[in-house]
Amino acid sequence: MGASRETILETIHKYVDLVATGTSADVVALYAEGATVEDPVGSDVLTTREQIAAFYATLDSLEQEGRLLFARVAGNEAAFSFELATRAGDQTFTLAPIDVMTFDDDGRITSMRAFWSGEDMLVS
Amino acid sequence: MGASRETILETIHKYVDLVATGTSADVVALYAEGATVEDPVGSDVLTTREQIAAFYATLDSLEQEGRLLFARVAGNEAAFSFELATRAGDQTFTLAPIDVMTFDDDGRITSMRAFWSGEDMLVS
Repeated sequence: MGASRETILETIHKYVDLVATGTSADVVALYAEGATVEDPVGSDVLTTREQIAAFYATLDSLEQEGRLLFARVAGNEAAFSFELATRAGDQTFTLAPIDVMTFDDDGRITSMRAFWSGEDMLVS
Repeated sequence: MGASRETILETIHKYVDLVATGTSADVVALYAEGATVEDPVGSDVLTTREQIAAFYATLDSLEQEGRLLFARVAGNEAAFSFELATRAGDQTFTLAPIDVMTFDDDGRITSMRAFWSGEDMLVS
Protein backbone atom coordinates (compact mmCIF):
# COMPACT_ATOMS: atom_id res chain seq x y z
CA MET A 1 0.00 0.00 0.00
CA GLY A 2 1.37 3.35 -1.00
CA ALA A 3 0.43 6.77 0.28
CA SER A 4 -3.13 7.88 -0.46
CA ARG A 5 -3.96 10.41 -3.16
CA GLU A 6 -4.89 12.90 -0.39
CA THR A 7 -1.56 12.46 1.41
CA ILE A 8 0.36 12.94 -1.84
CA LEU A 9 -1.62 16.09 -2.71
CA GLU A 10 -0.98 17.40 0.81
CA THR A 11 2.78 16.93 0.37
CA ILE A 12 2.63 18.71 -2.99
CA HIS A 13 0.76 21.68 -1.50
CA LYS A 14 3.25 21.89 1.37
CA TYR A 15 6.14 21.67 -1.06
CA VAL A 16 4.92 24.58 -3.19
CA ASP A 17 4.22 26.71 -0.08
CA LEU A 18 7.54 25.91 1.58
CA VAL A 19 9.70 26.34 -1.52
CA ALA A 20 8.31 29.87 -1.74
CA THR A 21 8.08 30.92 1.90
CA GLY A 22 9.67 28.24 4.13
CA THR A 23 13.27 27.60 5.03
CA SER A 24 15.41 25.13 3.13
CA ALA A 25 15.25 22.87 6.23
CA ASP A 26 11.43 22.88 5.99
CA VAL A 27 11.62 21.78 2.35
CA VAL A 28 14.26 19.11 2.98
CA ALA A 29 12.06 17.66 5.75
CA LEU A 30 9.49 16.72 3.07
CA TYR A 31 12.05 14.40 1.48
CA ALA A 32 12.58 10.77 2.54
CA GLU A 33 16.05 9.49 3.40
CA GLY A 34 17.87 8.51 0.20
CA ALA A 35 15.77 10.82 -1.98
CA THR A 36 17.11 12.26 -5.22
CA VAL A 37 16.62 15.65 -6.90
CA GLU A 38 17.17 16.48 -10.59
CA ASP A 39 16.40 20.16 -11.19
CA PRO A 40 16.29 20.87 -14.06
CA VAL A 41 15.93 17.49 -15.78
CA GLY A 42 19.24 16.75 -17.52
CA SER A 43 21.39 18.28 -14.77
CA ASP A 44 23.40 16.29 -12.21
CA VAL A 45 21.18 14.29 -9.87
CA LEU A 46 21.57 15.31 -6.21
CA THR A 47 21.76 12.18 -4.08
CA THR A 48 22.69 13.29 -0.55
CA ARG A 49 20.74 15.23 2.06
CA GLU A 50 23.56 17.81 2.12
CA GLN A 51 23.35 18.39 -1.62
CA ILE A 52 19.57 18.76 -1.49
CA ALA A 53 19.80 21.15 1.48
CA ALA A 54 22.39 23.27 -0.34
CA PHE A 55 20.19 23.36 -3.44
CA TYR A 56 17.17 24.75 -1.55
CA ALA A 57 19.35 27.05 0.58
CA THR A 58 19.86 29.22 -2.51
CA LEU A 59 16.16 30.16 -2.24
CA ASP A 60 16.27 31.07 1.47
CA SER A 61 17.14 34.74 1.04
CA LEU A 62 14.67 35.40 -1.78
CA GLU A 63 11.27 37.06 -1.57
CA GLN A 64 8.98 34.58 -3.29
CA GLU A 65 5.39 33.59 -3.88
CA GLY A 66 4.33 30.08 -4.88
CA ARG A 67 1.10 28.86 -6.40
CA LEU A 68 0.08 25.33 -7.37
CA LEU A 69 -1.46 25.40 -10.86
CA PHE A 70 -2.29 21.82 -11.77
CA ALA A 71 -1.61 18.42 -10.18
CA ARG A 72 -2.12 14.85 -11.39
CA VAL A 73 -1.59 11.84 -9.11
CA ALA A 74 -1.12 8.31 -10.48
CA GLY A 75 -0.31 5.54 -8.02
CA ASN A 76 2.70 6.56 -5.89
CA GLU A 77 3.77 9.25 -8.32
CA ALA A 78 2.57 12.69 -9.29
CA ALA A 79 3.20 15.45 -11.82
CA PHE A 80 2.27 19.06 -11.13
CA SER A 81 2.89 22.54 -12.42
CA PHE A 82 3.42 25.46 -10.09
CA GLU A 83 4.39 29.07 -10.41
CA LEU A 84 7.24 30.57 -8.40
CA ALA A 85 7.48 34.37 -8.53
CA THR A 86 10.68 35.96 -7.20
CA ARG A 87 10.86 39.68 -6.57
CA ALA A 88 14.24 41.37 -6.96
CA GLY A 89 14.07 45.14 -6.69
CA ASP A 90 11.55 46.39 -9.26
CA GLN A 91 11.52 43.15 -11.20
CA THR A 92 9.62 39.89 -10.78
CA PHE A 93 11.06 36.68 -12.21
CA THR A 94 8.37 34.06 -12.73
CA LEU A 95 9.08 30.42 -13.45
CA ALA A 96 6.42 27.74 -13.80
CA PRO A 97 8.02 24.29 -13.99
CA ILE A 98 6.35 20.89 -14.16
CA ASP A 99 7.71 18.70 -11.35
CA VAL A 100 7.47 14.92 -11.27
CA MET A 101 7.74 13.24 -7.88
CA THR A 102 7.63 9.75 -6.40
CA PHE A 103 6.51 9.17 -2.82
CA ASP A 104 7.00 6.62 -0.07
CA ASP A 105 4.17 5.08 1.94
CA ASP A 106 4.14 8.07 4.32
CA GLY A 107 3.86 10.61 1.52
CA ARG A 108 7.47 11.75 1.78
CA ILE A 109 9.19 12.60 -1.49
CA THR A 110 11.59 9.91 -2.73
CA SER A 111 12.50 11.64 -5.98
CA MET A 112 11.89 14.95 -7.70
CA ARG A 113 12.58 15.86 -11.32
CA ALA A 114 11.82 19.42 -12.50
CA PHE A 115 10.99 20.12 -16.17
CA TRP A 116 11.87 23.67 -17.21
CA SER A 117 14.47 25.56 -19.21
CA GLY A 118 15.78 29.10 -19.37
CA GLU A 119 13.24 30.01 -22.08
CA ASP A 120 10.45 29.51 -19.53
CA MET A 121 11.62 32.33 -17.21
CA LEU A 122 9.42 35.43 -17.49
CA VAL A 123 10.57 38.86 -16.30
CA SER A 124 8.03 41.56 -15.50
CA MET B 1 23.20 16.13 -29.68
CA GLY B 2 19.56 15.53 -28.95
CA ALA B 3 16.52 16.90 -30.73
CA SER B 4 16.05 20.66 -30.50
CA ARG B 5 13.48 22.25 -28.24
CA GLU B 6 11.52 23.27 -31.36
CA THR B 7 11.48 19.73 -32.75
CA ILE B 8 10.31 18.34 -29.39
CA LEU B 9 7.53 20.94 -29.13
CA GLU B 10 6.49 20.13 -32.70
CA THR B 11 6.18 16.42 -31.83
CA ILE B 12 4.12 17.29 -28.73
CA HIS B 13 1.73 19.48 -30.76
CA LYS B 14 1.35 16.73 -33.38
CA TYR B 15 0.75 14.16 -30.65
CA VAL B 16 -2.07 16.14 -29.03
CA ASP B 17 -3.69 16.82 -32.43
CA LEU B 18 -3.39 13.23 -33.63
CA VAL B 19 -4.54 11.58 -30.40
CA ALA B 20 -7.74 13.60 -30.77
CA THR B 21 -8.34 13.58 -34.52
CA GLY B 22 -5.81 11.28 -36.23
CA THR B 23 -5.78 7.53 -36.70
CA SER B 24 -3.96 5.24 -34.29
CA ALA B 25 -1.43 4.60 -37.09
CA ASP B 26 -0.72 8.36 -37.23
CA VAL B 27 -0.06 8.42 -33.49
CA VAL B 28 2.12 5.29 -33.52
CA ALA B 29 4.23 6.83 -36.31
CA LEU B 30 5.37 9.50 -33.81
CA TYR B 31 6.97 6.77 -31.68
CA ALA B 32 10.53 5.48 -32.23
CA GLU B 33 11.21 1.75 -32.57
CA GLY B 34 11.48 0.20 -29.11
CA ALA B 35 9.41 2.93 -27.45
CA THR B 36 7.41 2.27 -24.29
CA VAL B 37 4.03 3.56 -23.10
CA GLU B 38 2.75 3.62 -19.49
CA ASP B 39 -0.77 5.10 -19.42
CA PRO B 40 -1.73 5.69 -16.69
CA VAL B 41 1.48 5.66 -14.61
CA GLY B 42 1.39 2.51 -12.48
CA SER B 43 -0.24 0.34 -15.15
CA ASP B 44 1.58 -2.30 -17.24
CA VAL B 45 4.20 -0.78 -19.54
CA LEU B 46 3.49 -1.42 -23.24
CA THR B 47 6.74 -2.42 -24.94
CA THR B 48 5.83 -3.56 -28.46
CA ARG B 49 4.56 -1.64 -31.48
CA GLU B 50 1.52 -3.95 -31.58
CA GLN B 51 0.61 -3.17 -27.96
CA ILE B 52 0.99 0.58 -28.53
CA ALA B 53 -1.09 0.42 -31.74
CA ALA B 54 -3.84 -1.51 -29.93
CA PHE B 55 -3.83 1.03 -27.11
CA TYR B 56 -4.42 4.01 -29.44
CA ALA B 57 -6.87 2.04 -31.62
CA THR B 58 -9.40 2.32 -28.78
CA LEU B 59 -9.57 6.06 -29.55
CA ASP B 60 -10.11 5.67 -33.30
CA SER B 61 -13.89 5.52 -33.24
CA LEU B 62 -14.34 8.40 -30.76
CA GLU B 63 -15.29 12.00 -31.51
CA GLN B 64 -12.61 13.99 -29.73
CA GLU B 65 -11.01 17.37 -29.40
CA GLY B 66 -7.49 17.90 -28.08
CA ARG B 67 -5.81 21.04 -26.78
CA LEU B 68 -2.28 21.51 -25.48
CA LEU B 69 -2.41 23.46 -22.22
CA PHE B 70 1.16 23.73 -20.95
CA ALA B 71 4.51 22.26 -22.04
CA ARG B 72 7.96 22.24 -20.47
CA VAL B 73 11.03 20.92 -22.28
CA ALA B 74 14.25 20.00 -20.46
CA GLY B 75 17.04 18.40 -22.46
CA ASN B 76 15.69 15.39 -24.40
CA GLU B 77 12.62 15.14 -22.20
CA ALA B 78 9.37 17.04 -21.78
CA ALA B 79 6.31 17.22 -19.56
CA PHE B 80 3.04 18.70 -20.78
CA SER B 81 -0.61 18.88 -19.88
CA PHE B 82 -3.32 18.61 -22.47
CA GLU B 83 -7.06 18.33 -22.51
CA LEU B 84 -8.88 15.59 -24.38
CA ALA B 85 -12.64 16.05 -24.69
CA THR B 86 -14.67 13.05 -25.89
CA ARG B 87 -18.28 13.47 -26.94
CA ALA B 88 -20.62 10.52 -26.41
CA GLY B 89 -24.24 11.33 -27.15
CA ASP B 90 -25.22 14.31 -25.04
CA GLN B 91 -22.26 14.00 -22.70
CA THR B 92 -18.68 15.22 -22.92
CA PHE B 93 -15.96 13.41 -20.98
CA THR B 94 -12.94 15.64 -20.42
CA LEU B 95 -9.59 14.38 -19.19
CA ALA B 96 -6.49 16.55 -18.79
CA PRO B 97 -3.47 14.38 -18.01
CA ILE B 98 0.16 15.41 -17.61
CA ASP B 99 2.31 13.36 -19.97
CA VAL B 100 6.06 12.91 -19.60
CA MET B 101 7.99 11.93 -22.74
CA THR B 102 11.56 11.22 -23.78
CA PHE B 103 12.71 11.78 -27.36
CA ASP B 104 15.39 10.50 -29.71
CA ASP B 105 17.65 12.74 -31.79
CA ASP B 106 14.98 13.02 -34.50
CA GLY B 107 12.26 14.08 -32.07
CA ARG B 108 10.49 10.74 -32.11
CA ILE B 109 8.98 9.61 -28.82
CA THR B 110 11.04 6.94 -27.03
CA SER B 111 8.83 6.75 -23.93
CA MET B 112 5.54 8.16 -22.69
CA ARG B 113 4.15 8.10 -19.16
CA ALA B 114 0.71 9.62 -18.50
CA PHE B 115 -0.18 10.99 -15.06
CA TRP B 116 -3.92 10.91 -14.36
CA SER B 117 -6.46 8.95 -12.37
CA GLY B 118 -10.19 8.31 -12.48
CA GLU B 119 -10.86 11.30 -10.19
CA ASP B 120 -9.59 13.62 -12.94
CA MET B 121 -12.32 12.70 -15.44
CA LEU B 122 -14.95 15.43 -15.79
CA VAL B 123 -18.38 14.78 -17.24
CA SER B 124 -20.47 17.66 -18.62
